[in-house]
Amino acid sequence: MKISARNRLKGKVVDIVKGATTAHVRIDIGNGVIVTSSITNEAVDELGLKIGADAYAVVKASDVMVAVD
Amino acid sequence: MKISARNRLKGKVVDIVKGATTAHVRIDIGNGVIVTSSITNEAVDELGLKIGADAYAVVKASDVMVAVD
Amino acid sequence: MKISARNRLKGKVVDIVKGATTAHVRIDIGNGVIVTSSITNEAVDELGLKIGADAYAVVKASDVMVAVD
Amino acid sequence: MKISARNRLKGKVVDIVKGATTAHVRIDIGNGVIVTSSITNEAVDELGLKIGADAYAVVKASDVMVAVD
Amino acid sequence: MKISARNRLKGKVVDIVKGATTAHVRIDIGNGVIVTSSITNEAVDELGLKIGADAYAVVKASDVMVAVD
Amino acid sequence: MKISARNRLKGKVVDIVKGATTAHVRIDIGNGVIVTSSITNEAVDELGLKIGADAYAVVKASDVMVAVD
Repeated sequence: MKISARNRLKGKVVDIVKGATTAHVRIDIGNGVIVTSSITNEAVDELGLKIGADAYAVVKASDVMVAVD
Repeated sequence: MKISARNRLKGKVVDIVKGATTAHVRIDIGNGVIVTSSITNEAVDELGLKIGADAYAVVKASDVMVAVD
Repeated sequence: MKISARNRLKGKVVDIVKGATTAHVRIDIGNGVIVTSSITNEAVDELGLKIGADAYAVVKASDVMVAVD
Repeated sequence: MKISARNRLKGKVVDIVKGATTAHVRIDIGNGVIVTSSITNEAVDELGLKIGADAYAVVKASDVMVAVD
Repeated sequence: MKISARNRLKGKVVDIVKGATTAHVRIDIGNGVIVTSSITNEAVDELGLKIGADAYAVVKASDVMVAVD
Repeated sequence: MKISARNRLKGKVVDIVKGATTAHVRIDIGNGVIVTSSITNEAVDELGLKIGADAYAVVKASDVMVAVD
C-alpha cells in the first residue's frame, strides 16, 4: 500500500508500552532521534510490532507544525 | 514556551512554498530525511521562516502512525 | 506497507480538485457514501491518482469523532 | 449543530471498550465496513452511546489520507 | 447533532478568507481571544458562514496540546 | 520556542487525570470556558503540570472545525 502521507521516517522500534486501550511506541530514526507514536493496542498486535524490528513513523503533512527558538 | 508535543525534530528549512492560504515548508532533519509540513501562510510570516534557517518539525504523538514493510 | 491506522475504506476516486498547494480528493466507498480527503497536490501526483481508480480513504482512529442525532 | 467536517458516516454502534481515560468505539457503516474511533470515556457517557444505537463517524477532510495498492 | 468533540467554543465569525481549496475562518470567542480554523471552502458555503454570525470553534481533545512558559 | 500553531489559549490548569498511558488535562481559559486536552502522561510530567498553574491550550488551525446551531 502506498499512502499520501508525506512523512515516512524509517527506523527501529525501541519501546512499546501498552495502556488499557492506547499504546506508546517509540521508533529510533537514527542520528539520536526518537519519535513517539500513540496508537491503539490493537494496531500494535496487528502489525506484530516488536522491539528491534524495522518500522516507519508516518505523519500527514497537515499534522506537522514548525517551531523556531 | 515548552510544549507537550512529544516530537520536536531539529533541522534546517530547505523549502517554502506558499499557496493561496496554505504553505508547505520542508525541513531537513539530517541523515537525508526531509519532513514536510503544511501550515498557514500567516505562520510562515509570523515565524519569519527563511530557507537555511534553523527550525523544528513538531508533531503530537497521537498524530504519528506506525507502518511496517 | 502495512499501517497502524485502523480505518482503510476501499473505494473509487470520483473527484480530484487541485488548489495552489492543497488538493481535495473524493472517494466513493459504496452504498452512496463519498469520503472527502484534503491532501497535498504532491501526494496526488506521487500516487498517480485518477478519476475511476481504486483507492482507500485512510483515517487514524484518534481522528474519528462520534456524533448522534 | 451543523459541523464543517466533510465526512459524517452513518451507522450503528457495534462495540464500545472503555480504557482508563480513552475509549474505542466501533461503528458499522454498512457494506461490511466497521469504523474505529478513539474518543474520551467522558464523550461516550455524555452521548449515551450504547451498542445497537444509531451514530455517525465524523472525520475532518484534513484527517483523511489516500492510499493505493 | 451532538458530537463527541470535547471543545466547542462559542463565538462570532470575524474573518473569512477563501483560498483555492482551503479557507481560514476566524472566530472571536470573547475575552479578546480569536480562534483560527482552516476548513474547506465547501464547508464555508455549506454552513453559510458570514462575518458577524454566531459560530462554534470545535476541537477534539486529542488535537489539543498543552504549553507552559 | 515559537510555534506555528495559530491557537494558543492562555489559562490555568483546573484538572489532571492520568490514565494508563494517556492523560486528560483541563485548562480554564476564562469567561467560563474549559478546554480539554488529551496528552501523554509523560508530557504531563515533563511540563510539571499542576492544578492552578498557568498553561496554554495549543491547537493547530487545521484541527479546528466550525459549527453553527
